[in-house]
Amino acid sequence: MNYRIIFYIIGWVLNIEAAFMLLPILTGIVYGESALWAFVWTGVLCLAIGGSLTVKKPKRQYFYVKEGYVTVSLCWIILSVMGALPFLISGSIRHPIDALFETVSGFTTTGASILPAVEDLPKCVLLWRSFTHWIGGMGVLVFLLSLLKLAGGSHMNLMKAESPGPSVTKLLPKVHSTAKILYGIYFAITILQILVLAVSGMSLFDAITTSFGTAGTGGFGIKNDSIASYSPLIQVEVTVFMILFGVNFNVYFLLLLRKWKQAFSSEEVRWYFIIILASILFIGWNIQGIYGSFGTALRHSAFQVGSIITTTGFATTDFNCWPEVSRTILVLLMFIGACAGSTGGGIKVSRIIILLKSSRKELSQYLHPRQVKKIHMDGKPVDREIIRNINVFMVIYLLIFSFSMLALALDGTDLITNFTAIAATLNNIGPGLELVGPTGNFSLFSSPSKLVLIFDMLAGRLEIFPLLLLFVRDTWRKF
Amino acid sequence: MNYRIIFYIIGWVLNIEAAFMLLPILTGIVYGESALWAFVWTGVLCLAIGGSLTVKKPKRQYFYVKEGYVTVSLCWIILSVMGALPFLISGSIRHPIDALFETVSGFTTTGASILPAVEDLPKCVLLWRSFTHWIGGMGVLVFLLSLLKLAGGSHMNLMKAESPGPSVTKLLPKVHSTAKILYGIYFAITILQILVLAVSGMSLFDAITTSFGTAGTGGFGIKNDSIASYSPLIQVEVTVFMILFGVNFNVYFLLLLRKWKQAFSSEEVRWYFIIILASILFIGWNIQGIYGSFGTALRHSAFQVGSIITTTGFATTDFNCWPEVSRTILVLLMFIGACAGSTGGGIKVSRIIILLKSSRKELSQYLHPRQVKKIHMDGKPVDREIIRNINVFMVIYLLIFSFSMLALALDGTDLITNFTAIAATLNNIGPGLELVGPTGNFSLFSSPSKLVLIFDMLAGRLEIFPLLLLFVRDTWRKF
Repeated sequence: MNYRIIFYIIGWVLNIEAAFMLLPILTGIVYGESALWAFVWTGVLCLAIGGSLTVKKPKRQYFYVKEGYVTVSLCWIILSVMGALPFLISGSIRHPIDALFETVSGFTTTGASILPAVEDLPKCVLLWRSFTHWIGGMGVLVFLLSLLKLAGGSHMNLMKAESPGPSVTKLLPKVHSTAKILYGIYFAITILQILVLAVSGMSLFDAITTSFGTAGTGGFGIKNDSIASYSPLIQVEVTVFMILFGVNFNVYFLLLLRKWKQAFSSEEVRWYFIIILASILFIGWNIQGIYGSFGTALRHSAFQVGSIITTTGFATTDFNCWPEVSRTILVLLMFIGACAGSTGGGIKVSRIIILLKSSRKELSQYLHPRQVKKIHMDGKPVDREIIRNINVFMVIYLLIFSFSMLALALDGTDLITNFTAIAATLNNIGPGLELVGPTGNFSLFSSPSKLVLIFDMLAGRLEIFPLLLLFVRDTWRKF
Repeated sequence: MNYRIIFYIIGWVLNIEAAFMLLPILTGIVYGESALWAFVWTGVLCLAIGGSLTVKKPKRQYFYVKEGYVTVSLCWIILSVMGALPFLISGSIRHPIDALFETVSGFTTTGASILPAVEDLPKCVLLWRSFTHWIGGMGVLVFLLSLLKLAGGSHMNLMKAESPGPSVTKLLPKVHSTAKILYGIYFAITILQILVLAVSGMSLFDAITTSFGTAGTGGFGIKNDSIASYSPLIQVEVTVFMILFGVNFNVYFLLLLRKWKQAFSSEEVRWYFIIILASILFIGWNIQGIYGSFGTALRHSAFQVGSIITTTGFATTDFNCWPEVSRTILVLLMFIGACAGSTGGGIKVSRIIILLKSSRKELSQYLHPRQVKKIHMDGKPVDREIIRNINVFMVIYLLIFSFSMLALALDGTDLITNFTAIAATLNNIGPGLELVGPTGNFSLFSSPSKLVLIFDMLAGRLEIFPLLLLFVRDTWRKF
């Protein structure tokens, strides 16, 4: 294990975190809030540790898969621990585990909150809370890679470990350039959303924080009722942007290159939109009795479907009160999740497609045992390695789910609350049903349960393997 | 497709079903019940159809995998349809779908009932209800194979399609002899249980029906409160027999051959007992407050754990009222299920073990990408084919689960009821939680939902693939 390079990267992540503190500090200055000092002290601490770790560039910069995974996991844990400090120092959250929960929920773009009310928090704290979504959405290491030029060719391993989805494509030959382009697109759409929302009558602060939450598919709101009190126009706009951020970013890259045909031929994106459309229409029809008109029902349906499938977690209405069949659809959407290569969580549409295709293939293999067939995706054959990887992903996913169910049951909360709380954290969504529904929050769980959910959120964001490798003895053995 | 042989086999299955009617007819004679005529007419009908299909032995008796699967699925469906007639004719159940539900629930050894009260049913109907468990437990085609000597060597395909578990071992070179031995063991342990229960104070009728329900891991009781009103001794005895019938029957065969070492080295059976023991102790500790003493708590815990993991579904107490963590453990046990090659349902312990092992292997593959490792089970390497098969099984299992959730949600019943109703039928257990808990029943569902659950029960018993192939166009195409 090349510990030097691991510490070096961690150091840089801390330096970047210190830089990120400037935004809440600026907000604090604008609104004249004393809470800004919490960010100053945290920034100084990050810089002190980060600076000392990055004074000397290590000679061997080569990265194996193992180091990539370990680095990413450690970076996310350290990022979250440091990111929790402002909540504690400013007194916004009193208990360290609560602060960690809120921060991990932010960085992993989950949006599950332990705060019963957010409107009395200082603006700079609210901004930091939403900003963590934006940082976590595209990934802090992808950001680092877009800045830092490391020698040695395997930094793809870092990106692979942090980017969601079964396969990560290099858009350009250099990881450095790929990372730059991804962040460029991410930044541009975020700015676009801020402008659109501001023009539609949101205050700049609200527009910025809401856009951060949308871009990262996070879901922390700055109002107690999430997006419910904004105008219908704004709700529709947020719906559109949520869905856009759930699209595989490769498609935007292809659009930039004017490769229209390639961009529109993505099977994953096609199915993503088909699922969304079908769900919106069905739920809209199902809930129209509650909202009087089909139009209003459709708006709420579209918002919630977009919010859940992209794993954002914003809400315009208490969908916990919807009819059982709509609730069930939302629960199923929780698991499907967004596209690979987007900022969304969940199992990912492409994984589901590949699982379905491989099942169909196996069934036909029963009929024609001697036939050799390959699964295709976007016209290209899918690597056997990827299929195996997805299968294992599913198994470990179910295992983590089962163990979490057991752990949370010790609290004595009801089965649906537990089930959807785990679904909401492992898939990085935010709200679940019943006690953790849109009007509830996660403060009801005990500290051990919160730690389990923190693990689930990290496992969900890093797609399990990197985090799990930390617990394998072999990882730490010299070879 | 060799239709002649398929019809021939179906014919024999109907002949056998006619023969099976003798037992309820005998019961009807003993108790002087007029309902016995329902069985006489059904038997005559079965014999008429079965006899006409079996007058001529087809020349080509060769069986491909495809034919095996199709035959098994069709046999089970026809068996259930004919088996439902006595309920309708005797007037015990009025609605055809309800009668089919009850019969499929019987043959698939599920034990989910639409009857709110069973104690006023005629004895011969009660016996038939329990007898369907016994017939379905080891499988009607395995029974047929033990009687019928078919030419051609691939009748293993029939047995493979009907026997639970990822891999079916031939105990003896001939399928005919393997089937005979399996049924011999099955018959012997059933008789043993009848004797033990009768000696412990049960009436002969109760002992026979309870043993049928235990042997097939079915769960239909003849009392409204299942096993709760019997003495603690009987409850303990039933517990032991339930757990015994959940063991892979290969182990009993090895014991018969005095291959002790081989018999006791089965990984699956070892884990089966470890899971049972751990669950009993934990739940016993968790519920002792409800039952006053640890001893009573342990008895109820052991009974319910045995009942659920073997997917029997008997109950001695309303476990729906247990603390959340115990309920969660029971739900998890529902999915694990019994050993492969037993009469129990669920995913099967061996599948879970192989899934876990392959996940661990994949994780270590991340660390050592060039390493080539094989998974071992009982000291032998596991075929890659089997692992793939299990993965596909899991995916289709989850798919069926999801679609069933959606379908049931249309009824408007709550999420836990739906979730556990599907878990209880797809895993062939019987009772679930909430409205379908031990004190509830399945009559609350609409007819379409019942049809979905009927499909789930059959899919669970036949382990999905045979049933699914009926719906693949390729199956019916000539080649």
